[in-house]
Amino acid sequence: MTGSPPASGLQLRSLITAEGRLQLSLVDTPVPTPGSDEVVVRIEAAPINPSDIGLLFGAADMATAVASGLAGHPVVTATVPESAMRAMAGRVGQSLPVGNEGAGTVVAAGDSHAAQSLLGQTVAVLGAAMYSQFRTVPASACLRLPEGTTPAQGASCFVNPLTALGMLETMRAEGHSALVHTAAASNLGQILNRVCQADGVGLVNIVRRPEQATLLRGLGAAHVCDSSAPDFVDTLTEAIAATQATLGFDAIGGGRLAGQILSAMEAAIARKSSTEYSRYGSNVHKQVYIYGGLDTGPTEIRRNFGMTWGVGGWLLFPFLQRIGTEASDKLKARIVAELHSTFASHYARTFSLAEALTLEAIGVYGPRSTGTKILINPNAQAAASA
Amino acid sequence: MTGSPPASGLQLRSLITAEGRLQLSLVDTPVPTPGSDEVVVRIEAAPINPSDIGLLFGAADMATAVASGLAGHPVVTATVPESAMRAMAGRVGQSLPVGNEGAGTVVAAGDSHAAQSLLGQTVAVLGAAMYSQFRTVPASACLRLPEGTTPAQGASCFVNPLTALGMLETMRAEGHSALVHTAAASNLGQILNRVCQADGVGLVNIVRRPEQATLLRGLGAAHVCDSSAPDFVDTLTEAIAATQATLGFDAIGGGRLAGQILSAMEAAIARKSSTEYSRYGSNVHKQVYIYGGLDTGPTEIRRNFGMTWGVGGWLLFPFLQRIGTEASDKLKARIVAELHSTFASHYARTFSLAEALTLEAIGVYGPRSTGTKILINPNAQAAASA
Repeated sequence: MTGSPPASGLQLRSLITAEGRLQLSLVDTPVPTPGSDEVVVRIEAAPINPSDIGLLFGAADMATAVASGLAGHPVVTATVPESAMRAMAGRVGQSLPVGNEGAGTVVAAGDSHAAQSLLGQTVAVLGAAMYSQFRTVPASACLRLPEGTTPAQGASCFVNPLTALGMLETMRAEGHSALVHTAAASNLGQILNRVCQADGVGLVNIVRRPEQATLLRGLGAAHVCDSSAPDFVDTLTEAIAATQATLGFDAIGGGRLAGQILSAMEAAIARKSSTEYSRYGSNVHKQVYIYGGLDTGPTEIRRNFGMTWGVGGWLLFPFLQRIGTEASDKLKARIVAELHSTFASHYARTFSLAEALTLEAIGVYGPRSTGTKILINPNAQAAASA
Repeated sequence: MTGSPPASGLQLRSLITAEGRLQLSLVDTPVPTPGSDEVVVRIEAAPINPSDIGLLFGAADMATAVASGLAGHPVVTATVPESAMRAMAGRVGQSLPVGNEGAGTVVAAGDSHAAQSLLGQTVAVLGAAMYSQFRTVPASACLRLPEGTTPAQGASCFVNPLTALGMLETMRAEGHSALVHTAAASNLGQILNRVCQADGVGLVNIVRRPEQATLLRGLGAAHVCDSSAPDFVDTLTEAIAATQATLGFDAIGGGRLAGQILSAMEAAIARKSSTEYSRYGSNVHKQVYIYGGLDTGPTEIRRNFGMTWGVGGWLLFPFLQRIGTEASDKLKARIVAELHSTFASHYARTFSLAEALTLEAIGVYGPRSTGTKILINPNAQAAASA
């Protein structure tokens, strides 16, 4: 091993007890000595993505959150409604680390060439527990960032960029030619807009508020439909007819939206072809993938769009496994090449680990509906107190 | 051409008017002269499948049915609720023939070898408009029935047998090893039981009434779950755990059942593997295909089974197109070989075309929940009055 990593570092943990309490805290955790192919990364920037918040808060009602703990060792507790505890059964009693991606500096490396070549470099890392001061990870989990890139600039280069590219790859692999996206004003939605514009792919953006529609139009989006508008179904059908989208990605999950998208797709298909009547509808496959759960209520599908359709779950990691390392690496190479353009992220605030566990910070990043991104710098406080 | 087919014959028609009236009637329809590769079949037996009833009645409320018309030319009318007329838009004003399959005798044939070889033979036919006295069809749409097979014995050899085999083929092609089936006491369900027993495939039968459970157990079904029982979710989970089924075929469509099946699959998977907690659930793909609509209400999916799942439509004809002629022919060959065992159908009643358009007959075949099959013999009346 080269370098001298610290013996331990703080790590943000989320625990749900059998009694139905969520407890967020910072735990001093050993930093494993890197194996031959491993490196130790000092994490200096890790975004809070919607997928992180799901693990962080679980099913807790954050309106009940209470802050306690000594300075530098804050604790936040909240109540998990009894009705939601069954869904939490798999994690009860486990102190879980959080954070799917981050970036920082390699401060120690194992003996292999791959590990050694990263020593001293700024890298982005895809993996769990990124809300930690130090992480020992395989060299292969690191993406070396171009000279002059800060950890903050590279911190979000995996989850949202790979998800946007994964949506396009899925579209191509399954024979579609345009996309519908919901919750489209999100950070991911904005990236998807840039990718689709760069690749010349038709994209129908569904948002839930007029100001989100304005935001996306300002970013050059050609098709924006506001689901709160009275003429939503008509404008959605128009936009789908214009793009010929037959694939949707839905971050909301609950309610009628997925079914409305399928219905609008079928209406758009029926409009351009007047074939013989079939009570089974058109033979064009219409698909909506649910990749998030902003609305955790039931998905209500009114099957008024024939029989050639599908709804299902979609997740980034199984997608990456499906396409394999070589194809994944191509996507990552594109992200690095366009890190300061297509895939640039901007952050509204940066919190230290201790700051992240304050009610004020939770009030900022807790509402997932925001289009503003938040960063955690696990070494901010350590640096200040060093 | 060889043979002398009649110039015309009676054909059952279903018409929905713009005013919201369903009209069922018999129309004297020309019998086209067969082309070189075509034959004329005198249809002597055609089953009423649930899929036929959908086209026959459309969205009409059959409780409003009124019979009229002269003897031999009956007319049945009924009201289509205004709320359902939008879904009928594609067929308004079109006098549609009905009947997906049937069997009979080839009475005329075109000049090709394929057509000539069928002359005088008893054949089963897959195609539309089988509630007709005579049908001119491609020779390739005919399946020659073995010596001594009556039209009634061969009349149902396509839709239900091919659907049952199609479910098994889909299971194998998509990497599953056992099945869940709803509305399992149906004629199709009984065939599926025999096929699964013959092939050693695990099958979980979901029925809606205790007497249907008794019926299926009497046919040797190992796993039968009654959705009307208070312990339904538990017995379903047990049966799915025992068979390791991860694919379901649902004839009901509306309500919570499809989601309950996915939920029970996930619970059965979680029970046998105790891996690390993932809030995305297991990585085992769970799929339910909706192939019918006994409940036309919304499909309500409570997403408590992780993210690795799909729900979608499944239809026989697109499936056959997907697998191609050669694979389809193999399935048909198996059906013919096992026509008097695995794929045998039994009929409660046989109606002539005129009898089928009486309120008494509609009262027998109208309720699709019945497990008893009904046959139409379009030439019964003609024979009697000849």
